[in-house]
Amino acid sequence: MSQAVNELPQRLLMGPGPSDADPRVLAAMATPLVGHLDPAFLALMDDVQSMLRDLFRTGNAMTFPVSATGSAGMESTVANLVEPGDGVLVCVNGVFGGRMCDVAERCGATVTKVEAPWGKPIDPADVRKALDLVAPKIVAIVHAETSTGVLQPLEEIGSLVRDAGALYLVDAVTSLGGVDVRVDDWGIDAVYSGTQKCLSAPPGLSPVSFSTRALEALDAREGKVQSWYLDITMLRKYWGSDRVYHHTAPISSIYALHEALRLVMEEGPEQRFERHRVTHEYLRDQLESLGFEFLVAPEYRTPMLNTVRIPDGFEDADVRRRLLVEHNIEIGAGLGDFAGKFWRIGLMGGSCRIENVDRLVSALRNLS
Amino acid sequence: MSQAVNELPQRLLMGPGPSDADPRVLAAMATPLVGHLDPAFLALMDDVQSMLRDLFRTGNAMTFPVSATGSAGMESTVANLVEPGDGVLVCVNGVFGGRMCDVAERCGATVTKVEAPWGKPIDPADVRKALDLVAPKIVAIVHAETSTGVLQPLEEIGSLVRDAGALYLVDAVTSLGGVDVRVDDWGIDAVYSGTQKCLSAPPGLSPVSFSTRALEALDAREGKVQSWYLDITMLRKYWGSDRVYHHTAPISSIYALHEALRLVMEEGPEQRFERHRVTHEYLRDQLESLGFEFLVAPEYRTPMLNTVRIPDGFEDADVRRRLLVEHNIEIGAGLGDFAGKFWRIGLMGGSCRIENVDRLVSALRNLS
Repeated sequence: MSQAVNELPQRLLMGPGPSDADPRVLAAMATPLVGHLDPAFLALMDDVQSMLRDLFRTGNAMTFPVSATGSAGMESTVANLVEPGDGVLVCVNGVFGGRMCDVAERCGATVTKVEAPWGKPIDPADVRKALDLVAPKIVAIVHAETSTGVLQPLEEIGSLVRDAGALYLVDAVTSLGGVDVRVDDWGIDAVYSGTQKCLSAPPGLSPVSFSTRALEALDAREGKVQSWYLDITMLRKYWGSDRVYHHTAPISSIYALHEALRLVMEEGPEQRFERHRVTHEYLRDQLESLGFEFLVAPEYRTPMLNTVRIPDGFEDADVRRRLLVEHNIEIGAGLGDFAGKFWRIGLMGGSCRIENVDRLVSALRNLS
Repeated sequence: MSQAVNELPQRLLMGPGPSDADPRVLAAMATPLVGHLDPAFLALMDDVQSMLRDLFRTGNAMTFPVSATGSAGMESTVANLVEPGDGVLVCVNGVFGGRMCDVAERCGATVTKVEAPWGKPIDPADVRKALDLVAPKIVAIVHAETSTGVLQPLEEIGSLVRDAGALYLVDAVTSLGGVDVRVDDWGIDAVYSGTQKCLSAPPGLSPVSFSTRALEALDAREGKVQSWYLDITMLRKYWGSDRVYHHTAPISSIYALHEALRLVMEEGPEQRFERHRVTHEYLRDQLESLGFEFLVAPEYRTPMLNTVRIPDGFEDADVRRRLLVEHNIEIGAGLGDFAGKFWRIGLMGGSCRIENVDRLVSALRNLS
């Protein structure tokens, strides 16, 4: 055996997630277990659902954390709503839009893509045209594309989707907790997130929310949901008032999410979004002074995921390795065509602090 | 908000899982996060795989924890091996065999059942007959049925399955870490377990192992695996030497599993199985003296899950509630037809201690 986990290096996590979990969240993970049907645990579940509804700005009853990471949340929303042959319009301008296509096709969907170049937002006019052409059951889109750092405006497309009578499915993995996600106001019917980004809990859960319209579509299915584990028709009997056993809930991860959400509520969602905005602007100024250029135009930038072109004088892999080994700072490599040319610098939740930006910038000056 | 998690009651977990996690495992959960591609984390992953291979008694390269609970492990083994139209023979003598049928049908399998009454093992002669009739691609069976406490002998059926040229798929959720699970010797091609039973880590991961024959069947698939999240063709590039990102691994849960497996190896698997056997016998003697009768014949009893008929003088729901509220002890209710008539008392991993049996029996004497 190489080492015990308490001998692991102490990193500063400034990549695309996970982010640094607060000591209170880590302490919550170490709480002794209770059973998944214990009344004390059921009360915690109620709390988690209530805080998630507040953060998602929704009254949706079926708001809860799926018992696996964000990609399983994606699969949960898609698998519950798609039946073989259903049309799904997927907006693709990065890795995670592409992943949605793959997941939807595995569920038997007929996928149509609306594309934009990596680093650009999806154009509502393109969505409108595609809606007229294919009349899909579902339109799927990513709010904050973790592969590029594009923040997609959701409201205008949401009203097009609603006018077309389709369901609106949104990836909020990287956005939730760092910018506003207004599920009800924006007409979102199914949304999924992750715990390890701006919520700064450990990875392992995917908060999701389903609208009444989405649940009606679920009830109208002809066949069973293809995934037993993710089947909302059964899960709502555990997360709803029936409390019927489905699978053993990941108790400790729910403890951590509970504490992470308490931290969000103590700080205040608006104050938290403002902290992300201000820290992002500070990082931007610092990086630009070092010669980094942002991939995304200012009006479409996510504050929590900053994709920057690596300037001359920095060798990609070597600098990232030395940042990690010599300075204990993790940043993210570029994906796809951006590998070797761009970095992705995260400012997510607990990691999003002015002093962390200073530490990173000071290390970068050292390594240039 | 009702309460912080550190105000939760401290329970003794003697139900069907989760079991009590060791303080070292809980402390591991609280370790600050590192990234899922951090070299220090990759080394931990190697450790976990190596210890799981030792415990599963296998040389299978593709041995790793699925990033979700045991039921997702079930879905992982089934979804990767089944293509639409494939024949699957499922042995059913309790809830979890029944669940396998449901999961397999959702993957498009043509399911044939070999049944035995709840509380009885599956008869190899029945498997032989069914193999002759339907020549399935896969035979699926539960090692330790958590709904009844039957320990199924696996070796004889394994050799029938191998002779028939089928793949042998085994549920070891409740058995792994409490009794021997000999993957290679018994000809098992795909196996899944859970962390929250006899491994006594928190729920959230499902250790699985796939044989070379299983991976050959995977490679020979015509279509993609229907679950993106559970697709071994991609996951083996992360858990294998390529280290290609698939989804963000549940870092903290893997810390906990790492520490839980170290505890298993420090104790020694054989010594751990012996502890389960001896403690079970002690519990049996104590319960029989109180008038409880075991559902399962002695030669087929699991040591870690004891299903007993509730004698006169104990009112099911009231006694379980008072055990929990007044004594902080959780035991399990009967499932299905056994509700109200039987209890399921767990002796799993960290909960499997003579002093815990004494505490339970003393509380029961109090409540009768």
